[in-house]
Amino acid sequence: MSKKIDITELALRDAHQSLFATRMAIEDMVPICEEIDQAGYWSVECWGGATFDACIRFLNEDPWERLRTFRTLLPNSKLQMLLRGQNLLGYRHYEDDVVDRFVGKAVENGMDVFRTFDALNDVRNVERAIKAVKREGAHAQGTLCYTVSELHTVEGYVQMARDLMDLGCDSLCLKDMAALLQPQPAYDIVKAIKDDLGEDVRIHIHCHATTGVTLVSLMKGIEAGADCVDAAISSMSLGPGHNPTESLVEMLPGTGFHTELDMDRLIKIKDYFAGIRPKYAEFASNIIGVETEIFKSQIPGGMISNMESQLRAQGAADRLKEVLLEVPRVRADAGYPPLVTPSSQIVGTQAVFNVMMGRYKVLTGEFADVMLGYYGSTLGVPNPEVVEIARLQAKKDPITCRPADLLPAEWEKDCEEAGALQGFNGSDEDVLTYAMFPKVAPTFFGTRHEGPKNVGKAPDVLAAEKAATAAGAQPGQPVRTPVRYKVIVNGAPHSVSVQPS
Amino acid sequence: MSKKIDITELALRDAHQSLFATRMAIEDMVPICEEIDQAGYWSVECWGGATFDACIRFLNEDPWERLRTFRTLLPNSKLQMLLRGQNLLGYRHYEDDVVDRFVGKAVENGMDVFRTFDALNDVRNVERAIKAVKREGAHAQGTLCYTVSELHTVEGYVQMARDLMDLGCDSLCLKDMAALLQPQPAYDIVKAIKDDLGEDVRIHIHCHATTGVTLVSLMKGIEAGADCVDAAISSMSLGPGHNPTESLVEMLPGTGFHTELDMDRLIKIKDYFAGIRPKYAEFASNIIGVETEIFKSQIPGGMISNMESQLRAQGAADRLKEVLLEVPRVRADAGYPPLVTPSSQIVGTQAVFNVMMGRYKVLTGEFADVMLGYYGSTLGVPNPEVVEIARLQAKKDPITCRPADLLPAEWEKDCEEAGALQGFNGSDEDVLTYAMFPKVAPTFFGTRHEGPKNVGKAPDVLAAEKAATAAGAQPGQPVRTPVRYKVIVNGAPHSVSVQPS
Repeated sequence: MSKKIDITELALRDAHQSLFATRMAIEDMVPICEEIDQAGYWSVECWGGATFDACIRFLNEDPWERLRTFRTLLPNSKLQMLLRGQNLLGYRHYEDDVVDRFVGKAVENGMDVFRTFDALNDVRNVERAIKAVKREGAHAQGTLCYTVSELHTVEGYVQMARDLMDLGCDSLCLKDMAALLQPQPAYDIVKAIKDDLGEDVRIHIHCHATTGVTLVSLMKGIEAGADCVDAAISSMSLGPGHNPTESLVEMLPGTGFHTELDMDRLIKIKDYFAGIRPKYAEFASNIIGVETEIFKSQIPGGMISNMESQLRAQGAADRLKEVLLEVPRVRADAGYPPLVTPSSQIVGTQAVFNVMMGRYKVLTGEFADVMLGYYGSTLGVPNPEVVEIARLQAKKDPITCRPADLLPAEWEKDCEEAGALQGFNGSDEDVLTYAMFPKVAPTFFGTRHEGPKNVGKAPDVLAAEKAATAAGAQPGQPVRTPVRYKVIVNGAPHSVSVQPS
Repeated sequence: MSKKIDITELALRDAHQSLFATRMAIEDMVPICEEIDQAGYWSVECWGGATFDACIRFLNEDPWERLRTFRTLLPNSKLQMLLRGQNLLGYRHYEDDVVDRFVGKAVENGMDVFRTFDALNDVRNVERAIKAVKREGAHAQGTLCYTVSELHTVEGYVQMARDLMDLGCDSLCLKDMAALLQPQPAYDIVKAIKDDLGEDVRIHIHCHATTGVTLVSLMKGIEAGADCVDAAISSMSLGPGHNPTESLVEMLPGTGFHTELDMDRLIKIKDYFAGIRPKYAEFASNIIGVETEIFKSQIPGGMISNMESQLRAQGAADRLKEVLLEVPRVRADAGYPPLVTPSSQIVGTQAVFNVMMGRYKVLTGEFADVMLGYYGSTLGVPNPEVVEIARLQAKKDPITCRPADLLPAEWEKDCEEAGALQGFNGSDEDVLTYAMFPKVAPTFFGTRHEGPKNVGKAPDVLAAEKAATAAGAQPGQPVRTPVRYKVIVNGAPHSVSVQPS
């Protein structure tokens, strides 16, 4: 008796978010949706995370329209999204009514599965969203953000799993955003949750591939009882992305587990994206191949490049090593939060500040908020001395309640402000877009009528631009068009047009 | 009690053979040898396979001198080589005396571990080499080439393991040159060999990474009792290469297995090769990422590109699909040989001939030899009808004896012919070089005094060449130097020198 392992395909969301900065245009996804719809996936992740932001900021595309497009083109598939709990798809906590409305509209437009996480693993921050998902009749997946510290134990994850299931979750996800989940912990955590909460508790595993070990972790997680694992079609996999779907299928024969994916369709999907990915080369991550130093530093690759550019901007690129040593101390002082958006940026920036200006001489507003509980609670107790510094600098007191409990009602105001914007289409969806991205939405509403942009470039265009840059020309200047020179011949100036013959 | 897993590092041999056509120059290896020597590897593979050929054909480098260099620079390491049994490092069977002399000289120049394989898994073809290695007091490793067919069974591999151990092997290697070894078969084969031959039989596993599943296979092999696995430092890994050494280290914590590699040194080695690899970009394999179609076609990626170029050369690139369908039939007719050098080329070329000229209308000389037993015996019985065609075309009878039994003594003749060559240095090593590569050695002996060449190129040189090509200039023509034009101004011709300002 072989157990069927379900697969969630990530190509349409996290794969391009991780591999090329969430830039894939909808028109590059549409042609392959039918194959994806028929390949036999448990779900297709296609929305949420950074895609909403990227749509309105870079692609002039209405993210709600994108969702409706997927709903139409993937009629047989469960659509899945990544939701940042009380942060929805933005970067701050939203008031409960906004959370309810967002979830309602997402379901109405076609979303089926809501993977809901909180960057601090504070269950209070996902409770409202999960209840809304349940009320709407959709699939609520609670998320354990995997991280490593002296305080993080298997029993701790089991406790969090219990708390999430108590909220009524339909399934759990062990989410390894930094590729830190080694095979044995994967086995131990999944096994312990199943042992504690019962075989029927459905467990998904999401791993990135950066460190090169996590396909083994998925195997161990499957052996421990995981029901569904995430993967990305091979031409959209590896590096800072995920493990290849086809490899996942092929690692199982004979093990007592199998997938029911259609390999012929997978190969079509693979070939399709192999043609698309090169168009986005200029947005590609610098990480290629494997990066295992994360295990030592506990600092995800993307976070390091952020800190590097912050240091460079201050002419202090040579101080990266000090910053890398400072990060674990800052994280410990903050009570060992997982390092994931936005906690990774908050901890990283504070580490840069500490090195540049002296330890905790200046706190960022966000770091002060973390120390004072305004993002929620962490597993560890925040360092009281730093909490006191935060209290003095931010001029506000620490809180222990659920942060969103302090938020005033905002929907009426959101409606009013959105309503005043040029290009606002009168829908609640637009109000939600504005509520989450009040700085970006006005521009987007104004240009929306121009239609979605495709920022990908044909490989020959990219190559020509690169060649032009290498040859000393300005980027964007075509190489083969005539160049005009002022040429002095025998003392007389002439305008001469020259091009390669 | 955790079991220590030994690691063989492949960076100095199979990694660059697989990733960039065996082109790495010795001067790009020398600076990192000390770190490699101290990192804690069980052995360092650094010689044999295609390196001997590449040294004299492309790098104007004496392979024997390369071996002595490694011996000097890696005083604490076991040096390991890949030996093609009776084929030594060439492409035909050599007479036993030549085999003995080659092994003797390899040991004398510093070789410790001889991984010896036969492309058909015919144990008679490795017997002489293994006995020579034992006589010289070095480590003899017998090799099972892993392949998949209706005839290949776990019991068959166990039988071959028994035969190899009966020859006096110090260890066994399960060699997966095509990345076809899935996790469960890896487990089953290693377990069955240990069960049958005893826990003390030392088993190594060598996997390529092409299909993306084989790190899991290594994990399963380790669980089944494998003692040593091969890996390549991450900056020299993946694609058609091997699994990353660091990932292998990091997948083990908590599993009951561990390596004793020094991660700080691994990172230095990784960083070093990260700087070297881009120099060889123009030799890089086209395979990037993961390629799982091999599982379906059973045809290794390198073999497909060979057949593609053969077809292109005959203006029949559109017939690749037919050829891909023909390969399994040809392989079955030949008795299901593993597809590895040289059997992969022989089967592939015959498949092309069959499609182009009609099935078995024309046999290549090599394919006829395979059918008639001149390469040894295969697991399956060759198709008698095709054997008969081979007999008629090649005008010779099938044999069942060990092919090398038919070879006349050749050493005296080799000495004589080599001795007549300009630049011959009088050593037995030179005679062996000539014996294995009679067409390439004469040129090499003549140019050897010019010293080793480095065919790698600094990344900026490569980029400039690429840019020049993209801009329509001739490859190799520098881009930023002045270009002279004949310019007609107002009807009068002028010679004008132009360069980007």
